[in-house]
Amino acid sequence: MALDLTASSVELTRAICDIPSVSGDERVLADEIESALAAYGHLEIIRHGNTVVARTSLGRPQRVVIAGHIDTVPINGNVPTRDVEIDGTPHLWGRGTVDMKAGVAVQLKLAAELTAPEADITWMWYDNEEVQAEKNGLKLLADERPDLFAADFAILGEPSDGRIEGGCNGTLRAVVRTRGVRAHSARSWVGENAIHGAAPILSRLAEYRAREVTVEGLGYREGLNAVAIRGGVAGNVIPDLCEVDVNYRFAPSKSIDDAVAHVRAAFDGFEIEIVDAAAGARPGLDAPIAQRFLAAVGGEAHAKYGWTDVARFSALGVPAVNYGPGDPHLAHHDEERVPLAQIEAVERGLRAWLTTS
Amino acid sequence: MALDLTASSVELTRAICDIPSVSGDERVLADEIESALAAYGHLEIIRHGNTVVARTSLGRPQRVVIAGHIDTVPINGNVPTRDVEIDGTPHLWGRGTVDMKAGVAVQLKLAAELTAPEADITWMWYDNEEVQAEKNGLKLLADERPDLFAADFAILGEPSDGRIEGGCNGTLRAVVRTRGVRAHSARSWVGENAIHGAAPILSRLAEYRAREVTVEGLGYREGLNAVAIRGGVAGNVIPDLCEVDVNYRFAPSKSIDDAVAHVRAAFDGFEIEIVDAAAGARPGLDAPIAQRFLAAVGGEAHAKYGWTDVARFSALGVPAVNYGPGDPHLAHHDEERVPLAQIEAVERGLRAWLTTS
Repeated sequence: MALDLTASSVELTRAICDIPSVSGDERVLADEIESALAAYGHLEIIRHGNTVVARTSLGRPQRVVIAGHIDTVPINGNVPTRDVEIDGTPHLWGRGTVDMKAGVAVQLKLAAELTAPEADITWMWYDNEEVQAEKNGLKLLADERPDLFAADFAILGEPSDGRIEGGCNGTLRAVVRTRGVRAHSARSWVGENAIHGAAPILSRLAEYRAREVTVEGLGYREGLNAVAIRGGVAGNVIPDLCEVDVNYRFAPSKSIDDAVAHVRAAFDGFEIEIVDAAAGARPGLDAPIAQRFLAAVGGEAHAKYGWTDVARFSALGVPAVNYGPGDPHLAHHDEERVPLAQIEAVERGLRAWLTTS
Repeated sequence: MALDLTASSVELTRAICDIPSVSGDERVLADEIESALAAYGHLEIIRHGNTVVARTSLGRPQRVVIAGHIDTVPINGNVPTRDVEIDGTPHLWGRGTVDMKAGVAVQLKLAAELTAPEADITWMWYDNEEVQAEKNGLKLLADERPDLFAADFAILGEPSDGRIEGGCNGTLRAVVRTRGVRAHSARSWVGENAIHGAAPILSRLAEYRAREVTVEGLGYREGLNAVAIRGGVAGNVIPDLCEVDVNYRFAPSKSIDDAVAHVRAAFDGFEIEIVDAAAGARPGLDAPIAQRFLAAVGGEAHAKYGWTDVARFSALGVPAVNYGPGDPHLAHHDEERVPLAQIEAVERGLRAWLTTS
């Protein structure tokens, strides 16, 4: 059954949630989207792998990108979707309802409906957001078709509880290591215990007080955390290696170099390996087009803490914000569900902005 | 080719090392031992699984048990044995030379040769010492035939560098846990980091000063060590659990209850699970028969730190010591090798004791 882009955004959310599209398995949904959009002559369609781009070319003075990923984390007994009522409020329950097919449904509906928006729009629906970065459909598209990313502003439909969340923190992963000398644990004094040697690493982490950094009016709360620790050879051996995986979340005003220097200072005296790092994204809410977006949607912008693909736009010089239905705390949750009213509110917000000069 | 128990103890070591007998695979060697001993009428042979017992019944006023395990840890390119010279000293190199076929070879030779020892002797060669306790041939024999363990003194031929090592420390394993609350690491303040919570556990371990406890004239050095640590859910999740595996080695004057109380006090305030514990063994060197052994072998007795099967004799009320050729630090080592002179010295020591009234 073909997707009906004239259905309500709630019905469209239900329809695309019920087409499973766990990362790596997005082809069927991408085909459905491409084929549904083909009926709309105001859109030029570009297919790139399982990423579908649709854009208007009305010669407007400004262009915006509006994007969302079509993959989900694995299904866990939560497809097909169902209607549930929570505290008297109707919700759509199931995998993808929050992260982020409700956002995609709103975008698909508006892509079909808005034949003459106030700004030209490049819509992007991409695959493999929930897996390793090198498979990310938005990244692959940016690598091969950076021209498609030329825009004045970008909106990513990631769940933000229907609020505007500007930019995002950067993220850095490092391994902090201690080394020792193996020995039989019955003669521990012959060796040197690498796990004991890690005591100051954990103490520094426990005592660390994260800062809140204001960037372009939004407060970004940082964090420095151990996300894993491992060490040990056998039950009767003094371990010669202990590794602490550390994750540093840093404000978008800091460069990757700043973040590396901060982590090196925090664990001064220890062996540190920087595993990977991704810069954050400035919120860019001072641009006039962003101000118009804020005014149209209403409410107040907040800082986004988690790293999202907005940083890819930011790296290309395009200010970007997150704006989508669904509580981000329920993303990936097996009880993932979205209030129907929030889907409709985001649809109204985007429509108001895109149709108001 | 049958084992020739009249060969030199060095040649006998070579012969039995070249019959692979990794734990669980001892049948061929046990068969060879049983069949070689059958020729010696002064010995009564008892076969129990792959454990072989041989004993004299001369009506002597005292009986000693002399025991050794016939299994090895896995071979790693170090069988068959070869002759090597290290610092001008001839060695036999290969798996089992230290732990503990040289000791077994000396015992086999003396079992065959000593038809009229000064004390009755119960020789025991057992399987599965290098694996989990429930498979240990000496344990299984003690469970089913405790009568065979009636003795005034016991010697275990574990490598002790040709010195007498009395008794052994006890050993206790515990898991010390911290718990927290999971959260996305981009919003770490929502959670509680269990790895950070483990900082005081590692600090206490790093600051811990182990005691040396004198028991019956021998100094037992203790130790409290982390032997493993683990925690972590995913690279972007605040971990809700951290576990530290702790190994406490305690002097044989302490009971298991004493050891448990000590560990609970050391990690007061934390969740502690006692995983297992084995009491140590008092050296028992004050008994006259032990004093005669000391005098015959010469040299000074030392405390054994590592837990060994002497503790099984101790638990049955039989004082027991370790006495065997080979540097215990080379046990399980891929460069395992024993000086030929040490094999011969241990042979002389045991023979002197067993033939002197």
